[in-house]
Amino acid sequence: MAEALNGLKRTNMCGDLRETHISNKVTVMGWVGTKRNLGGLVFIDLRDRTGLLQVVFGEEINKEAFQKADLVKPEYCIAITGEIIKRQSPNDNMPTGQVELKGASIKILSESETPPIYIKEDLDASENIRLKYRYLDLRRPDMQKILMIRHKTAKVIRDFLDENGFLEIETPMLTKSTPEGARDYLVPSRNYPGNFYALPQSPQLFKQLLMVSGYDKYFQIARCFRDEDLRSNRQPEFTQVDIEMSFVEEEDVIAVNEALIKKVFKEVVNEDVMLPMKRITYKEAMDKYGSDKPDLRFGMEIVDISEEVRECEFVVFKNAIDNGGSVRAIKVTNSADMGRKKLDKLGEFVKTYKAKGLAYIAYKEDEIKSPIAKFLSETQMQAILNKVEAKTGDLVLIVADKDSIVLQSLGALRLQLAKELEILKDNVEFNFVWVTEFPLVDYNEEENRYVAAHHPFTMPMDEDLQYLESEPGRVRAKAYDMVLNGEELGGGSIRIHDSSLQETMFKVLGFTQEKAWERFGFLLEAFKFGPPPHGGLAFGLDRIVMFLAGTENIKDVIAFPKNQNAFCPMTQAPNMVDDKQLEELGITKAEIKK
Amino acid sequence: MAEALNGLKRTNMCGDLRETHISNKVTVMGWVGTKRNLGGLVFIDLRDRTGLLQVVFGEEINKEAFQKADLVKPEYCIAITGEIIKRQSPNDNMPTGQVELKGASIKILSESETPPIYIKEDLDASENIRLKYRYLDLRRPDMQKILMIRHKTAKVIRDFLDENGFLEIETPMLTKSTPEGARDYLVPSRNYPGNFYALPQSPQLFKQLLMVSGYDKYFQIARCFRDEDLRSNRQPEFTQVDIEMSFVEEEDVIAVNEALIKKVFKEVVNEDVMLPMKRITYKEAMDKYGSDKPDLRFGMEIVDISEEVRECEFVVFKNAIDNGGSVRAIKVTNSADMGRKKLDKLGEFVKTYKAKGLAYIAYKEDEIKSPIAKFLSETQMQAILNKVEAKTGDLVLIVADKDSIVLQSLGALRLQLAKELEILKDNVEFNFVWVTEFPLVDYNEEENRYVAAHHPFTMPMDEDLQYLESEPGRVRAKAYDMVLNGEELGGGSIRIHDSSLQETMFKVLGFTQEKAWERFGFLLEAFKFGPPPHGGLAFGLDRIVMFLAGTENIKDVIAFPKNQNAFCPMTQAPNMVDDKQLEELGITKAEIKK
Repeated sequence: MAEALNGLKRTNMCGDLRETHISNKVTVMGWVGTKRNLGGLVFIDLRDRTGLLQVVFGEEINKEAFQKADLVKPEYCIAITGEIIKRQSPNDNMPTGQVELKGASIKILSESETPPIYIKEDLDASENIRLKYRYLDLRRPDMQKILMIRHKTAKVIRDFLDENGFLEIETPMLTKSTPEGARDYLVPSRNYPGNFYALPQSPQLFKQLLMVSGYDKYFQIARCFRDEDLRSNRQPEFTQVDIEMSFVEEEDVIAVNEALIKKVFKEVVNEDVMLPMKRITYKEAMDKYGSDKPDLRFGMEIVDISEEVRECEFVVFKNAIDNGGSVRAIKVTNSADMGRKKLDKLGEFVKTYKAKGLAYIAYKEDEIKSPIAKFLSETQMQAILNKVEAKTGDLVLIVADKDSIVLQSLGALRLQLAKELEILKDNVEFNFVWVTEFPLVDYNEEENRYVAAHHPFTMPMDEDLQYLESEPGRVRAKAYDMVLNGEELGGGSIRIHDSSLQETMFKVLGFTQEKAWERFGFLLEAFKFGPPPHGGLAFGLDRIVMFLAGTENIKDVIAFPKNQNAFCPMTQAPNMVDDKQLEELGITKAEIKK
Repeated sequence: MAEALNGLKRTNMCGDLRETHISNKVTVMGWVGTKRNLGGLVFIDLRDRTGLLQVVFGEEINKEAFQKADLVKPEYCIAITGEIIKRQSPNDNMPTGQVELKGASIKILSESETPPIYIKEDLDASENIRLKYRYLDLRRPDMQKILMIRHKTAKVIRDFLDENGFLEIETPMLTKSTPEGARDYLVPSRNYPGNFYALPQSPQLFKQLLMVSGYDKYFQIARCFRDEDLRSNRQPEFTQVDIEMSFVEEEDVIAVNEALIKKVFKEVVNEDVMLPMKRITYKEAMDKYGSDKPDLRFGMEIVDISEEVRECEFVVFKNAIDNGGSVRAIKVTNSADMGRKKLDKLGEFVKTYKAKGLAYIAYKEDEIKSPIAKFLSETQMQAILNKVEAKTGDLVLIVADKDSIVLQSLGALRLQLAKELEILKDNVEFNFVWVTEFPLVDYNEEENRYVAAHHPFTMPMDEDLQYLESEPGRVRAKAYDMVLNGEELGGGSIRIHDSSLQETMFKVLGFTQEKAWERFGFLLEAFKFGPPPHGGLAFGLDRIVMFLAGTENIKDVIAFPKNQNAFCPMTQAPNMVDDKQLEELGITKAEIKK
């Protein structure tokens, strides 16, 4: 019994109606939320993307409409015409709660079966059902709100960058596979059987070429792809706000980008971000927080107590220090009475970060309880407590090992404790910080070579350039990450714009000259023709929207995400294709999924 | 001898400097255009994306700068600081021609080899060289202007749609292969070896699902992909302005979209588009112009003269009519004296459209010259001339065959003549027209079945719905194309939003119910839950920008296009990949390109 519009026009959106509309004749269209029969009347909550409006039908108002209204069920799509009147029993919890619509006529535009998930906020359905019926999941008001936030975020970003002279330029999706970094998604070529395009992991090289071309300021909100095993906050395709500028140094890039973020948080969620943002070097971030994306909303900083315990009897501490490692601690306020079971669990926790164990000192009112007390002199014990500034009631947790393990495990422990102790429970702050002076390269034990910490196009810091070939691990980069509440929002760098320096960099990364030219020859070639100094940054749009929308699940901010297996339960993609299609591409299946 | 910026900041862009800046101390950065030594001075035209600025160096001004300036060559990237002064010999052809910069210091930011193509407007280089050195090609001012037009076009579109309540929502790039229409680009799945994603040919199904989800008004400037053999105006990836609205009928979609286009042409090139745009039905367009994208900038309409020649002796005409075809003509004004050779060439031309030949009547002052005159009575001849409204000096060209061949060949001939006779030579008009009432399906002789004329989701016109199963070829669709100067800018339709009608449609297209559900089950399922009436449209952004920029080559409006073989001469994509990569994807090469 679906009816056509036949010229019927919507006059208003449901959520917009207010007392100022009283006695207006309006036509609204949307979905039936709830329907109630009460006192010989039919009440319908009609929903569109702007909100809910109560509609009342009665035999007295219009008999035909009343009878038809009585037939509708939740999620029917309907159009209603009638007069806005003052509501008998106002609902102050609803923006439209002061009025209601007197339903004089109704069209049933389409019917609905009972939906497999509830169309309501705070749905508690399995992820698989939500993704399978994504079109219903997306009908829920909280999902609609998130996608509206996403739209607005992208709009504010584009407006800001346009006003500041940036040009949005689209770069190719079918591009060259350059296997350095994550795994590429490949696209077989029909014209060149056995050859492949790659979907871009980022527009990095193209934006650098655009700088060589003199576009001066570029941006793009670009889809990027990584064929990696998915963690909760990863998706095979994600969206990057990609920015590049010419004739700039680090400070210029930082200034534009923090102004951009300030604008976004103000316009989208009315939050004032104070500028300039804090800065911290990579080294300090690692030393104090054991992380290159430190969460600065709380203290519990890591303290190096190697000096204090150097002379102690505890062989674990001594060994760590003797082998070039360290002994470090964090202080947990008012936690001296933490039970043995919980402490054991924390010990297990740090072991997942390769720490061999977790020592503790519980500074109780009446005693200092610690399994390692017997190895420490009173002076040494006091020195530790002094160093970490422990007061009565505090708990000190200690890891000893090589630095990377100590820092990583204590950094993770710090975050874990913040979660367990609900330190951030009512914290609503947005705590931004720039992390600077990243290492240029990391040593990769597996590959037995240095790999780029950011990417191979990052400029070394001037003062470290001299060590590039002799001691690459010592070289810091002109690279910066913007971190918010312990998550990386974006990162970038000043780029190399010199062919020979770029070639040296590839050499440091273990590329032969031939291999460097085979993969990146077009960039090296381009740098022969007056490349400008340039640098930029890329933000994760999905991540930004997660913060603005207050969700921790990346799937909530993407209209049609994939599940953990990069599969779409709704469309059933990926799927089998005809052999004829593969034949044209010059490929065959090596094995077939059953 | 590349120098670093070391804190030097650009103060102005080259092209912005005017007499108001005289005696300002400025720093500009850009590329050396020309360098001339004249009267003991060095003159450099410095170029950035805003334009050119003349810089003068002299021993008197600054000796060191003068000497350094003398070393630079074209396309060096440099920074210059100095004072803006009144130019000795103004150049009125340059926006900055009233001033020049007195170069007090210069930094050579990077050097340049002699570029393989000239960095100038109206370059006459081969396409291959331009694409191989695309970063230099893009440095040319006319290419920069086009990409700025493209940026602005996208910006105006987004602003307009945002103001009108549309939400930009990103849809997946890794989606399901549904081989109906063009050939998909496939992406092998690593998690499900032997299975494939497809890159989207358009976001059609996702935008319809978003309507089911209640987003009401959606848009997206979306990358789309088709693995087809490339013609000059096709690229493997292209950009679509994709729009969809709920609770609308054809008039609503048309109104929003013509307002959008009016806004774009006004804001980007200051052209006033008169609304409402003209409309023409598909049938009228075919009958008068032999095309569903008629160029209305000139007449030369096709006239049916079947009635006038029905009784004539010419067997070709008689046969055509007897076999259900027709005889039609176009009149070419003042072309009665067209030579035999040219007429023969036109005859060859129509043969490429399967016409068997081209008859003509040259209505000269002193005679009527026509090879078919002998078959026509004087009355019949006069009737033809009257029907086509020929005057002395006109040429009448006639094709007789079945309708499709007659219309297609005369339609093509009409465009060909307009080109040859330079009818549109000084025409600068933007002539828009909506073509409406398209057929719903076309009969495909090869596949021996009906195929969707637009796509399988298009709603039939109400009055033709009754013929859907009995005579599908007779059914017109609620579909509309916006045509500009004979090119399709965009097209769309009201969609089916009823599961059973959609299933019928698939049946008409020869799908078994099983096949329909296998491919499009998620859409059919979604339609069970209160889908709203909806419709939309998609514009080709590349095409729009081509018009705004005045270029006929799609490669000019895409920063990094592919060549005719879908190959990128710059990056050399597609390329070979490691066997290990393929192994992970569960595919093997069937053959290898040498």
